[in-house]
Amino acid sequence: MDLVGDTLQGSQIAGARLIRLLDDEDERGVEALKALYSHTGKAFIIGITGPPGAGKSSLVDCLITELRKRQLTVAVLAIDPSSPFSGGAILGDRVRMQGHALDDGVFVRSMATRGQLGGLSRSTFEASMVLDAMGYDIVIIETVGVGQDELEVVDLAHSTAVVSIPGMGDDIQAMKAGILEIGDVFIINKADKDGVDNLEKQLMTMLHLRDYDNNDWQPPLIKTSALNKEGAESLVDAFFAHRQWQSDRDLLNKKISAREFHFFNEVLRELSSRKVLERVSNSARYQQLVADLEARKIDPYTAAETMLEQSNL
Amino acid sequence: MDLVGDTLQGSQIAGARLIRLLDDEDERGVEALKALYSHTGKAFIIGITGPPGAGKSSLVDCLITELRKRQLTVAVLAIDPSSPFSGGAILGDRVRMQGHALDDGVFVRSMATRGQLGGLSRSTFEASMVLDAMGYDIVIIETVGVGQDELEVVDLAHSTAVVSIPGMGDDIQAMKAGILEIGDVFIINKADKDGVDNLEKQLMTMLHLRDYDNNDWQPPLIKTSALNKEGAESLVDAFFAHRQWQSDRDLLNKKISAREFHFFNEVLRELSSRKVLERVSNSARYQQLVADLEARKIDPYTAAETMLEQSNL
Repeated sequence: MDLVGDTLQGSQIAGARLIRLLDDEDERGVEALKALYSHTGKAFIIGITGPPGAGKSSLVDCLITELRKRQLTVAVLAIDPSSPFSGGAILGDRVRMQGHALDDGVFVRSMATRGQLGGLSRSTFEASMVLDAMGYDIVIIETVGVGQDELEVVDLAHSTAVVSIPGMGDDIQAMKAGILEIGDVFIINKADKDGVDNLEKQLMTMLHLRDYDNNDWQPPLIKTSALNKEGAESLVDAFFAHRQWQSDRDLLNKKISAREFHFFNEVLRELSSRKVLERVSNSARYQQLVADLEARKIDPYTAAETMLEQSNL
Repeated sequence: MDLVGDTLQGSQIAGARLIRLLDDEDERGVEALKALYSHTGKAFIIGITGPPGAGKSSLVDCLITELRKRQLTVAVLAIDPSSPFSGGAILGDRVRMQGHALDDGVFVRSMATRGQLGGLSRSTFEASMVLDAMGYDIVIIETVGVGQDELEVVDLAHSTAVVSIPGMGDDIQAMKAGILEIGDVFIINKADKDGVDNLEKQLMTMLHLRDYDNNDWQPPLIKTSALNKEGAESLVDAFFAHRQWQSDRDLLNKKISAREFHFFNEVLRELSSRKVLERVSNSARYQQLVADLEARKIDPYTAAETMLEQSNL
């Protein structure tokens, strides 16, 4: 298999394999990504975040249908927060979004995460690069918007929608306040349920608390019912309006540059700390410090500072 | 204020101030923590995790009541996932667990998180050290068990309970499977609601899929109704049984050592990458690479490797 060539041709087998190699931190994955890199930067990346139970998967399913109607190809990265523990995604790619299983213009991957290497956001960044290089017009990143990690993931998107639903508890209200700042579009899903007016009022109030001026994007509020397949058209329109608004101000390119700068620093950080740790961890001094730690003779901070001082860095 | 002395005396003002300094990455905080360190290692740290809406806060409230009945002092760290975005906890400490507001034996803190420095798990580790040094018998870490970050936090605990409730959607089921591996105790909260039998059956099935042998701890399944104040006694008994089981096998000390080793490496990693970045980021070569990145002449991986090769590390 020509990993780079086949991926650029849009081969789903090659793309899936490359994403897996990257997830396994296999050097071949990184090498292929370097070769693909100049072919990326074309896809429009959409983030969908919201609490568990908000119906994000069904919503993404409706979005796919609407985007396909518009002749656009779509890749989905479903971030499964449980995967670090199970060693793989719980909801397999196959059981998700089955309606599109036979459509070549749709590609769905569940993301596993890896340990120390920049975590979820780096994995997702890399996978989105692969999907971009494969030629998909739209890449959707679907994530549970709770942890810091997940929210960093959403930060990769060019346009992000925050999903809420009527009638959830205090935790959800608190979360909503916290993720307000990342929403470019707000979705009230399950808009056929009781409590929509109340939720809408709350969201409007929260949005008004944001410190907008006339030059800022004003996030629209879209009501959807993924179950009844309502609202996907307005939602897609809202994303494209936001994209246009950003392009008109050259903000999309700035976003892409900022993201690349961020990952350059992340990789540099990771590579340098790894190099230092490799060098010191075989030293007698390191072993001594570990023994002192175990005996509670030293605290972790002093131990780390001592090690670094003596490493001739 | 004598930050170290007062904290060791159990002063809530000093403890709160120290936690804030650590959260702000203030050097005085780290210095105080070093001085406190030898006084830690006594508290029993309990983790409570579960999805938004599972009633964790009310459950913790009942736990506090039960622990106070047993003459134990309790500190709570409530991890608010939204805080990285709001710049502070949404639910203030004052509005939480008001029933214990006048009780000196109870101390509740909502944790904010910070950016790059090891994130949530390091903040929580440090705060739990402070609470431990203050002399609390029990430290409860309450967190939304979704993101990887939050699950790392729970990994700090000596004993962790996973809370589920009847009648939630697919996302919850997926999450439950993922966090099964971290549960030492399983709680079905809102056990007065419909669907308890079904949930119990599902949890039992999942637990049986775990690969136990006779030497493993067998996690109990406890039903609670935080609203009706039922089940807290059995729950506290379960935590103490797990603690005893671990002490008998010298596993608690091993857990504490492993945690310290982990943070020693984390701090070393962070300090070394920071040192390298400080050194290179003013170089002409770094500026050139950033310009090349912006022009998409180079990918972030090659750029980072190039920088590191030329940094004489």
